[in-house]
Amino acid sequence: MSNDQNQNTAQTLPAMAKIPRDRLNDYTAESTAIRQGFIKEQTKTAIDHITHSSFDPAMLPGNIENFVGVAQVPIGLAGPLYVHGDHTNGHYYIPMATTEGTLVASYSRGMRLLNACGGARVTIAERVMQRAPVFHFDCAADARAFGAWVADNTSTIAAAAETTTSVGKLRDIQQWCVGPKHFLRFNYETGDAAGQNMAGKATQAACEWIRENYKPSVSYTLSGAIDTDKKHSAMNTLHSRGARVIAEIVIPCDTLQSIMGVTVQQLFKGRNVSNLGGLLAGTANNGMHAANGLAALFIATGQDAANIAESHAGMTYVEMRDNGDLYWSITLPSLIVATYGGGTGLATQKECLDILGCYGADKVGKFIEICAATVLAGELSLASAVLAGDWVDAHDKLGRNRP
Amino acid sequence: MSNDQNQNTAQTLPAMAKIPRDRLNDYTAESTAIRQGFIKEQTKTAIDHITHSSFDPAMLPGNIENFVGVAQVPIGLAGPLYVHGDHTNGHYYIPMATTEGTLVASYSRGMRLLNACGGARVTIAERVMQRAPVFHFDCAADARAFGAWVADNTSTIAAAAETTTSVGKLRDIQQWCVGPKHFLRFNYETGDAAGQNMAGKATQAACEWIRENYKPSVSYTLSGAIDTDKKHSAMNTLHSRGARVIAEIVIPCDTLQSIMGVTVQQLFKGRNVSNLGGLLAGTANNGMHAANGLAALFIATGQDAANIAESHAGMTYVEMRDNGDLYWSITLPSLIVATYGGGTGLATQKECLDILGCYGADKVGKFIEICAATVLAGELSLASAVLAGDWVDAHDKLGRNRP
Amino acid sequence: MSNDQNQNTAQTLPAMAKIPRDRLNDYTAESTAIRQGFIKEQTKTAIDHITHSSFDPAMLPGNIENFVGVAQVPIGLAGPLYVHGDHTNGHYYIPMATTEGTLVASYSRGMRLLNACGGARVTIAERVMQRAPVFHFDCAADARAFGAWVADNTSTIAAAAETTTSVGKLRDIQQWCVGPKHFLRFNYETGDAAGQNMAGKATQAACEWIRENYKPSVSYTLSGAIDTDKKHSAMNTLHSRGARVIAEIVIPCDTLQSIMGVTVQQLFKGRNVSNLGGLLAGTANNGMHAANGLAALFIATGQDAANIAESHAGMTYVEMRDNGDLYWSITLPSLIVATYGGGTGLATQKECLDILGCYGADKVGKFIEICAATVLAGELSLASAVLAGDWVDAHDKLGRNRP
Amino acid sequence: MSNDQNQNTAQTLPAMAKIPRDRLNDYTAESTAIRQGFIKEQTKTAIDHITHSSFDPAMLPGNIENFVGVAQVPIGLAGPLYVHGDHTNGHYYIPMATTEGTLVASYSRGMRLLNACGGARVTIAERVMQRAPVFHFDCAADARAFGAWVADNTSTIAAAAETTTSVGKLRDIQQWCVGPKHFLRFNYETGDAAGQNMAGKATQAACEWIRENYKPSVSYTLSGAIDTDKKHSAMNTLHSRGARVIAEIVIPCDTLQSIMGVTVQQLFKGRNVSNLGGLLAGTANNGMHAANGLAALFIATGQDAANIAESHAGMTYVEMRDNGDLYWSITLPSLIVATYGGGTGLATQKECLDILGCYGADKVGKFIEICAATVLAGELSLASAVLAGDWVDAHDKLGRNRP
Repeated sequence: MSNDQNQNTAQTLPAMAKIPRDRLNDYTAESTAIRQGFIKEQTKTAIDHITHSSFDPAMLPGNIENFVGVAQVPIGLAGPLYVHGDHTNGHYYIPMATTEGTLVASYSRGMRLLNACGGARVTIAERVMQRAPVFHFDCAADARAFGAWVADNTSTIAAAAETTTSVGKLRDIQQWCVGPKHFLRFNYETGDAAGQNMAGKATQAACEWIRENYKPSVSYTLSGAIDTDKKHSAMNTLHSRGARVIAEIVIPCDTLQSIMGVTVQQLFKGRNVSNLGGLLAGTANNGMHAANGLAALFIATGQDAANIAESHAGMTYVEMRDNGDLYWSITLPSLIVATYGGGTGLATQKECLDILGCYGADKVGKFIEICAATVLAGELSLASAVLAGDWVDAHDKLGRNRP
Repeated sequence: MSNDQNQNTAQTLPAMAKIPRDRLNDYTAESTAIRQGFIKEQTKTAIDHITHSSFDPAMLPGNIENFVGVAQVPIGLAGPLYVHGDHTNGHYYIPMATTEGTLVASYSRGMRLLNACGGARVTIAERVMQRAPVFHFDCAADARAFGAWVADNTSTIAAAAETTTSVGKLRDIQQWCVGPKHFLRFNYETGDAAGQNMAGKATQAACEWIRENYKPSVSYTLSGAIDTDKKHSAMNTLHSRGARVIAEIVIPCDTLQSIMGVTVQQLFKGRNVSNLGGLLAGTANNGMHAANGLAALFIATGQDAANIAESHAGMTYVEMRDNGDLYWSITLPSLIVATYGGGTGLATQKECLDILGCYGADKVGKFIEICAATVLAGELSLASAVLAGDWVDAHDKLGRNRP
Repeated sequence: MSNDQNQNTAQTLPAMAKIPRDRLNDYTAESTAIRQGFIKEQTKTAIDHITHSSFDPAMLPGNIENFVGVAQVPIGLAGPLYVHGDHTNGHYYIPMATTEGTLVASYSRGMRLLNACGGARVTIAERVMQRAPVFHFDCAADARAFGAWVADNTSTIAAAAETTTSVGKLRDIQQWCVGPKHFLRFNYETGDAAGQNMAGKATQAACEWIRENYKPSVSYTLSGAIDTDKKHSAMNTLHSRGARVIAEIVIPCDTLQSIMGVTVQQLFKGRNVSNLGGLLAGTANNGMHAANGLAALFIATGQDAANIAESHAGMTYVEMRDNGDLYWSITLPSLIVATYGGGTGLATQKECLDILGCYGADKVGKFIEICAATVLAGELSLASAVLAGDWVDAHDKLGRNRP
Repeated sequence: MSNDQNQNTAQTLPAMAKIPRDRLNDYTAESTAIRQGFIKEQTKTAIDHITHSSFDPAMLPGNIENFVGVAQVPIGLAGPLYVHGDHTNGHYYIPMATTEGTLVASYSRGMRLLNACGGARVTIAERVMQRAPVFHFDCAADARAFGAWVADNTSTIAAAAETTTSVGKLRDIQQWCVGPKHFLRFNYETGDAAGQNMAGKATQAACEWIRENYKPSVSYTLSGAIDTDKKHSAMNTLHSRGARVIAEIVIPCDTLQSIMGVTVQQLFKGRNVSNLGGLLAGTANNGMHAANGLAALFIATGQDAANIAESHAGMTYVEMRDNGDLYWSITLPSLIVATYGGGTGLATQKECLDILGCYGADKVGKFIEICAATVLAGELSLASAVLAGDWVDAHDKLGRNRP
């Protein structure tokens, strides 16, 4: 079953040479079958399930190369979840694709709490996507002079960037001087797309314009790493990447007690201690497990799951209100999602967006609000479970806790 | 198509009440159909694709609740990739589930480079999973006394923990004093499982034993947040969570030039600048995009995609060797994977592990090595593309770059 | 000699009650003597040296309360150091107040290297001081609306702030949304003062104006902690606090070898490894020991030594130039100094500023450049010593290495 | 007054050549006078105050080179401060050397509060000093093998280290694998010394023993930067550098109100917000201004002021007790102090230690406890002042707030 048998055959490895080269990246059922046959032959693996896709591979260009089948990730339906914000005001059923037992149940429990408290309130503070080139100089003084020139020419640079896109708008260019390097961070509004590629293409055009127009001559690298694409960073937390969105709820004591079996005081004290633990550990998120809900939503709806790296960051802030209610909020500073482009239009992915009423143009705000509310539901459910002592029990019952 | 129509019906919402309660969490085809019908009715959504699963829902308990169908995520086949380590020595075809165009092609290109350089060398430094409770005291002196007692009783505490598992072994207990709180971090070896639930259950047993045996009485919370489950943290980078694994390669100049179109000097200088950018941004990973390869592998093979939060962290170190070769390494300090339990046994997921020869007992070391080598391939491909200037072009050609 | 004898006398402690209350904070020689007598009596300590000040205590109001004498910190003279920047172009002798043996010698050695390479080049990228209030709201939407209002009213807010100062100018107001809290960060240009108090007073005036003019009513706290006064932070590194200044040098190979006994290659490779260590450790400064030179300069020249917390942060970037020279830079993002106000006018402190030609109006740029160049000298000296293996030996010879 | 006049004289600069070379580092009054004359001549500066030292320069070898005089830093007396811990149980008068107006008054106010609440309770959790070498390998597998060998030979390595010191004891060696580099962190107990030099010398001996005994051959660098000497780091916060010490107090509501003019609720809520601000900013200390009190104590008592970089880190944790009292703690994870060696034996410095009863052998525990209690006093005073709104007013009255 293993292909370790090939271990000494590096020189003679047939590799994918057995597949006609022009079949590698095409998207017909026939080519797919050839590739599937190659897997079976090379790895002696029966592949009865990944071959079982329901859509025409012709829809795949732009999403995958060397297509050989599909991962079937089970979807559970959570909710309904009552959300209200600028783009939402209603109940939503949340499709979550995961293999982690208890996840859907736990999020659903959190949603019941949110609903009982009047629904999650969600606010989008801003939404921008970046590409951050670095310009190279011999000394810091030259870098500084360049920075001043960029500041003076921002509108022209923006125009050059925007020639490449009908949707993206350059909001601003942030600047950082370090040694002889000058880092720019281009922030774009990107419509319903997540926008990484749009930002990349526009910024390349901007940089080319700069290279042609800046005297003396200047060279650059399109990413100087401060865009921290597919990576968490302090930069993301401070300056947003994708949406900066806050979900919040005010929880009366008896509502919490009846649904979660813990008191407001317990939850508040527990949060206080978790804040300390998070500070000690130097964590990207002082909350509970935003990554869980987001990964499940991302896989279901065709988001880029690698963006969990950025999107899982968060800041939880809670306070006791004077009347004894508990205010709880989570701020996600770098939630990267789309309702158009990327994987959103694929077969099951589009269906899940449709379940949410979030596919296509002018839907990204709505989808962001639903994502943030979902995260909030999971925070409250897990925080309560840890304190009520039924965390391990729940996993024993619904999960794959094995001795 | 939207369910915003329900927006004013919070009081009368039928919710899932329409589904008989005993149908909510069972796993028959019949119940699944009832739930699917509920979606169609509630959300007016045609769901022709998520309903198209190839397996019996009876295999799902422990992985999902309220099962309604599957997300079909396209799989591309990358490789072959030559890997050698303690558990690998051969060529592997890598199934990657993603919707991001260019990803599979880019990783494949990196694999060609690694193969041409003799294959990725991978070393697992350690592998442990945690649960980290916090014990509550009135003052720091009491916390300190407790810490000394824990150190004196570690073997007994370990025995209590290990009563809950036939696989898990408690390696050690780390301790931290902060204010009146005493944080413990239990590190377990967890066999072929990722081990979060195993660690949780064992630590709960250990804490219960402590609670019963420590005088005076003591209370605890099972997670004090320093385990940073589903979250990046400095703690993870320093002290590992899951596997700490290093993938490395020595690249001759002409090999790099012929496959990637850049020189060793360009790549080295580019890395130097990226290190600076990463430092400025305060990033979890000074490398390129480990999250991309890992997310694709995780979804294909039934890993918990939420663990991208932890697993995407990394430290890249490169150096020029005296003969002009370029040494490149990436250290992943918190790679969380399994070849048993969780989602690994599901239909398509098991097939993808089989393609790698990695399903089941005693395979996790092999799988870790393949994951790390895959990440390394992606690092070199993207780093080269950024410098060679064909990054945006590649996305234009293979991705969904839209104006 | 100990005052532990008082341990059970909490109730009857004479405290400073023995000193007439109106003598506590006045600044006559007579009151000083009374307080000194109090120390001798209370603590049975001979204080023959702290009493030996050379100046009239009448100059102290605004710098100290309960004045009882002086710490005499030995000053060593380092240099000369050749510095050129916007405010410097010459050689400077650097007074360094320290008790750490080898420090002055080591910095002097670094200065010899810089001089031999044509002098340190220094560039000030920006200089701003902050106060960062937080405004309190019930929910994030209210916080967001407030943020928009602030952006629309910045010039009026600036006018309110500037009523309190003839020197300070409000450059801009940065904004952050987290949960229901809205953080503002007021950035001021502060002339020759460090400006913390100036910024505090101006921001209080601005906040009062906001409180009076924003509808509905709003409350605030003058510091929401993101100004991170007297503390290192990622915020400081990204957004400067005090001066953001870069010192740099290009070092020919033979010059390095003859003065430091190491090669350019050794130093470059060593830096590469230190970058990795710094990344692993999560350090505020990936360089060597900026705090050493700065603390010595700060104490000598009447800076606030507590600002070492912020000022010691740094980013080192080096590169091999094509001709084999080594380029080395250090960027200090939050160097907080003054040439006016604070302790700069005190007796010895003003003399040390005079030695540098840096006392008084319009001198702060010059002083910043000298500080950064001094730091650079120390970086190169210590980095070389660690690699040449004479680090411990030097401390044996010049320091207080005791068995 | 400036020495910019020398700007074009790099080639002919007399430098310190005018001072006979054998006079540069000797410590007679005569040589000191020659050096002072050199300053006057070279910089045209009158130096009437730095020349006014009260001690014989013969005591200075090991503390300074090129001695030219003293910085006179005003000392204010704060306290008394009631402290109880393992090494303290009494009232102490705290000499604070600073030029920042209001500092002594503010700390004294905090001390009054602590005294009224029964005194600060202080607990030292551990105390260790580090040197952290890095060993160089060609690949990670070799680094891993080396790590195993070090673990197996720790006691022999410890013996080699301890040949260099009669005081230092090697507690343990921590290990980190990153790429082909193997980092070790040697932790020493260092008696009453701060111990950096002791740790450096011992570790060099240990590394030399390793180099001689490890097969195959191995090379190392004495610092791989993870000791983060003179720098804040996540490493320090997690693993201590110097003392890890907790100071705490329980504050009744009316006591707080009467002394500070704020309520327990205000202070608690304010802390909650500051925790959020600190999280957002990524600060080294979520408290108020530990650096202020520490810098003043360090300068007064001959500590290395550059260690403010490490020592200012802190974690504040507070909670409301059931009876309405407020519990407040600050944990300083890397407080670096000594009561022997370094600058502690100098003239005024020893006097200040004597005032505290802290000079010499077996006093370092006591001094650490006093330092931490002092910091706690300052935290409560400033936190209250910010909330009571008299922060700016106090600086107007006691500081150098200038328009």
